Amino acid sequence: MSQIRAWAADAANAPLHAYAYDPGPLGEEQVEIAVEYCGICHSDLSMLDNEWGRSRYPFVPGHEIVGRIVALGAQAKGRQLGQRVGLGWFSASCLHCGSCLDGDQHLCGNGEETIVRRHGGFAERVRAHWAWAIPLPDALASASSGPLFCGGITVFNPLVIAGVRPTDRVGVIGIGGLGHMALAFLRHWGCEVTAFTSSESKREEALQLGAHKVVSSRDRAALKQLAGQFDFLLVTVNVALDWPLFVAALAPKGRLHFVGGVLEPIPLAAFSLIGGQKSIGGSPLGSPATTARMLEFCARHAIAPQVEIFPMSQANAALEHLRAGKARYRVVLQADW
Amino acid sequence: MSQIRAWAADAANAPLHAYAYDPGPLGEEQVEIAVEYCGICHSDLSMLDNEWGRSRYPFVPGHEIVGRIVALGAQAKGRQLGQRVGLGWFSASCLHCGSCLDGDQHLCGNGEETIVRRHGGFAERVRAHWAWAIPLPDALASASSGPLFCGGITVFNPLVIAGVRPTDRVGVIGIGGLGHMALAFLRHWGCEVTAFTSSESKREEALQLGAHKVVSSRDRAALKQLAGQFDFLLVTVNVALDWPLFVAALAPKGRLHFVGGVLEPIPLAAFSLIGGQKSIGGSPLGSPATTARMLEFCARHAIAPQVEIFPMSQANAALEHLRAGKARYRVVLQADW
Repeated sequence: MSQIRAWAADAANAPLHAYAYDPGPLGEEQVEIAVEYCGICHSDLSMLDNEWGRSRYPFVPGHEIVGRIVALGAQAKGRQLGQRVGLGWFSASCLHCGSCLDGDQHLCGNGEETIVRRHGGFAERVRAHWAWAIPLPDALASASSGPLFCGGITVFNPLVIAGVRPTDRVGVIGIGGLGHMALAFLRHWGCEVTAFTSSESKREEALQLGAHKVVSSRDRAALKQLAGQFDFLLVTVNVALDWPLFVAALAPKGRLHFVGGVLEPIPLAAFSLIGGQKSIGGSPLGSPATTARMLEFCARHAIAPQVEIFPMSQANAALEHLRAGKARYRVVLQADW
Repeated sequence: MSQIRAWAADAANAPLHAYAYDPGPLGEEQVEIAVEYCGICHSDLSMLDNEWGRSRYPFVPGHEIVGRIVALGAQAKGRQLGQRVGLGWFSASCLHCGSCLDGDQHLCGNGEETIVRRHGGFAERVRAHWAWAIPLPDALASASSGPLFCGGITVFNPLVIAGVRPTDRVGVIGIGGLGHMALAFLRHWGCEVTAFTSSESKREEALQLGAHKVVSSRDRAALKQLAGQFDFLLVTVNVALDWPLFVAALAPKGRLHFVGGVLEPIPLAAFSLIGGQKSIGGSPLGSPATTARMLEFCARHAIAPQVEIFPMSQANAALEHLRAGKARYRVVLQADW
């Protein structure tokens, strides 16, 4: 176990090429995972292209990893050699700050991100703090579970922290990599589920994915008709929509919750929140405990991301497929070293 | 009990004059209250001036009322003749919609507002549905309790609905009629309390009112120093401030909560909420049950609004005092018919 073979880009927008690096000695609290599958997330593209100004090259993408533990640090707790685990956006957190001690390790101010200043899962092996290498229930397939560890937990965590109830009327805005998982979660959560999409072509699919109803996210007249209807609206898109109409679509005490990194400012009127006691929130990923609960929930309800599998050696083609907006709904690479 | 004497304005911005009206027969579920004291709220000025386009003239202001029940409708429940009660922004709600049945009568879509299409408390008597005429604990003084029923509950309700904990670090933005009550509530709630004010002259008073610390709400450098500090920030102003700095001042899972009707749009970046799992909320008033709990809390902790008393016959002078920004902190009229 010396060098790790991987796929890396040397600069923003450059293609991936075969690459190898020396990971150094394994940390005492780390585990090393032999990657079997790795999903591709939009944030891999953002980091590849250095959109957030945080990328370092050579850059190895990949943070929706499923594999088996092949090495354990001396202080790694609760994990075994050979155990099947998943790893997502975070690879470590300090475990001693207030957020970590509160069980909100995903809010740790000193968390390590799997593909920031580290090499990711488009590789033979990857390392992480044991707490973030989360055991996969037997019922979940390796091939389709990687996306749960980033996209999945991103849309599952809001249901937990916002206290979404099975009797709620909820909506998912944007039916893509994140949104298609949110539909399945919310359908099995017991809610009345509406899908909002700008793609008329996704209407039938959204119904099959779990939505009871589908509404065009750009149809102002239809949105106006929905005033006061929703207890919870989950925003998975990263483009501008007519947000005041969605705030108006909230019922009293309703919440509009962003997980999509909408860059355009959201014009917010205080009065639009005050009268109906509404709120707007946001959240990133989720904690290891919430991730483990999501996995159990998926196992119990046979929920799995819809994935398209590419061999990892064809990572460039897979990235292009995602860039072209063709993914239905999540692209996963299968290790083929 | 035929005509009700009152003080009314005949047009926007016109002075009040003596006026009398026939209230008609008492509703079966109504009570009639002989007004002893009536606070003046900024929204009385807004309605007097028809700022919200909802005023009808002759207009009788006043919705922070304390008095005694002098008549009971046949179906009025749980109230007695002679009982001392308070009445605030709402005078009735339908009691059969989802919000009312949930105990959120202040979110009723068909609520009646005390000074909208009705005559308010600058009067000898006023009527309300029994549910909104809320008994005053013996320990509370009539003269200073009126402001609790609008300004008070407006800043108390957020602590309840947002689940503010005694271990939280909180801030109150704006130290005026609402803010000075919020400081007292939060101090007795057990929190670490910071007052944000643009008036350097209010620094010492804010400390006496309950704040542990005072920060200038327009000092950008000081605000930047506070990044990540606050679990809850309550906005009681209705003017524009540098909101992104206040969002940045929230700790992970923190909430910025508006009760002040800020009219300028609040520029909101989704990413500013996502990373720290933050939220922005708003709320109006509070339910009768929450109002009753607030009154008990005030009685237990000897909390009272700081008031300046004017005879009701000098209502015009009292309104000018408030308009001039001279109120410290709430103006109350004493009936002197």
